[in-house]
Amino acid sequence: MMGKLKVYADRMSQPSRAVLIFCRFNGIDFEEIKVDISKRHHLSPEFREVNPLQKVPAIVHGSFNLSESHAILVYLASAFPGIADHWYPSDLYRRAKIISVMDWHHSNLRHGAVNYVINTVLGPATGRPLNPKAAAEAEKVLLSSLSKLEDIWLNGDGHFLLGVSQPSIADLSMVCELMQLEVLDEKDRSRILSPYKKVLQWIEDTRTATNPHFEEVHNILYRAKKKFEQQRSRVAETGTEPSNKMGGHSKM
Amino acid sequence: MMGKLKVYADRMSQPSRAVLIFCRFNGIDFEEIKVDISKRHHLSPEFREVNPLQKVPAIVHGSFNLSESHAILVYLASAFPGIADHWYPSDLYRRAKIISVMDWHHSNLRHGAVNYVINTVLGPATGRPLNPKAAAEAEKVLLSSLSKLEDIWLNGDGHFLLGVSQPSIADLSMVCELMQLEVLDEKDRSRILSPYKKVLQWIEDTRTATNPHFEEVHNILYRAKKKFEQQRSRVAETGTEPSNKMGGHSKM
Repeated sequence: MMGKLKVYADRMSQPSRAVLIFCRFNGIDFEEIKVDISKRHHLSPEFREVNPLQKVPAIVHGSFNLSESHAILVYLASAFPGIADHWYPSDLYRRAKIISVMDWHHSNLRHGAVNYVINTVLGPATGRPLNPKAAAEAEKVLLSSLSKLEDIWLNGDGHFLLGVSQPSIADLSMVCELMQLEVLDEKDRSRILSPYKKVLQWIEDTRTATNPHFEEVHNILYRAKKKFEQQRSRVAETGTEPSNKMGGHSKM
Repeated sequence: MMGKLKVYADRMSQPSRAVLIFCRFNGIDFEEIKVDISKRHHLSPEFREVNPLQKVPAIVHGSFNLSESHAILVYLASAFPGIADHWYPSDLYRRAKIISVMDWHHSNLRHGAVNYVINTVLGPATGRPLNPKAAAEAEKVLLSSLSKLEDIWLNGDGHFLLGVSQPSIADLSMVCELMQLEVLDEKDRSRILSPYKKVLQWIEDTRTATNPHFEEVHNILYRAKKKFEQQRSRVAETGTEPSNKMGGHSKM
C-alpha cells in the first residue's frame, strides 16, 4: 500500500494547477495540501522535508517524494491505473514527441511567460520590484514561443499539440502556463495573445476538455485578476500607487 | 526497417555532445551530421526540414524526427535494444527521479551555465556582444544550481546523481553542460567550480565512466579552450582587443 497521494500545491502557481487538474480529471484519490508562496510557506522546515528544492508542486506517495511538475505528471500517468493513454501515450514515437515539446517549454514558453508576468504584475506579491527592462526581454521570448506554438507545435489537424485529437500532459502544462497571463492588464494580454488564433483556440479546447476541473482550479486566478483590475482602476482614478499586498504570486 | 540513425550535431553545443557520447558509448550505429552553428548552418532551409526549431541536436530515424536532447536521449534509450538499464531505468520510481532532475536542469544549471559562458566568452562567435550585467545575473543562477547539485542531487553514497553507482542520461546531460565552462578563463572557472567538491568528483566520474568517447567528443572544446587562452595572453601582452572570429559557440 502506497498510502494516499499528497499533492503540495499553490493554485496561483501554474504548474501546481496542471497537477491538480490532472488528478481531479482522472479521478485520482489525493489530498491537496496548500503551500502559500505569498506567505513563504514553501520556505518552511516542514516543506523542506517534502521538497528540499522548496518549490511547488511536489508530491508524496507513500515513502516516495517527487518534485517538478512534468516529472510528477509522467509519474502519475504511469503509476495510477486507468489513466487514458492520450495523456502520456505508450507509443514510443508519440511519447518522444510529447517529451520533446515539454522539454522545449522550459526555456521558451515558461521562461518568457513567467518572467513577463512577474516583471509586469506579480513581482511585488513575492517581494520583488517590477522590472520593465526584464519584462521587455521576457516579452521577446514569450512572443517567439507563441509564434513557434502557432506555426510548429499546433500545426496539425487535431485540437491539441502535435496535431492530435485528445489532450496530453503537455497541453495541460502549457495551457496552465498561458492562463497566468489572465492577471495582466486586459489590453496587454490581448496585444500579446490575439495574433495567435490557434493558440487561443487551443486554450479553449484544453479548458473544455478538462472542465469543470479546469475552471474550478483556476478560480483563484480569476479572483486575483479582478483584484488587479480594481487596483488598476483605483490607480487610474486617483493616481494612488498600488499597495504590494496582493495575493497573487507565482512559482518562480 | 528504420534506416540508419542520423544525428545532427555541433560538438561545440553541450547537448549535442551528450547525445553523441551516448550513441558512441552504447554502440548505436549512427551517422553524425555536422551543423556548424558559427557558420549559421542551423538556419539553412535543409536543416529546417530536419528541425523547424532550428536547434541542435536533432535526430532523424527513418521517417521519425525529434529535437531536444533530453527527449532524444530518452528515445534512444527506449528504441535501441541492449542499452543498459542504468541509463534510463525501467523502475517507475528511479525513472521519475531522473525525469525530475532533468526537468530541474533547464531553468537552473543550463540557464545559469549557458548564459554565463555566452556573456563572458562565447557570445561574439554567434554574433552577440559580451554582456557583463547578464553574466552577473547568470552567475547567481549558476552558483545556486551548483549548490543544489552538491547538497541535494549528489547527496548520496554513489558516484552519480541521485546516489546511484552507474550514470544515467541525466548525468551525461548535466556534466556536458558543466564542461562548457572549460572555455572560461581558468581563474574564473576555478573560482566558480572549486567550492563544489562533489560536483568536481562527479564530472571526473562521468568522464571516466564514458571514456574514451567522452574525451574524443570533447576534443573540439579543448581546442577552443586553447584558442581562447592564447587570445587572452595576446590581449594581456599587447593590449589588443580580441577578434570575434573564434570558432567557439553554443547551442543558444
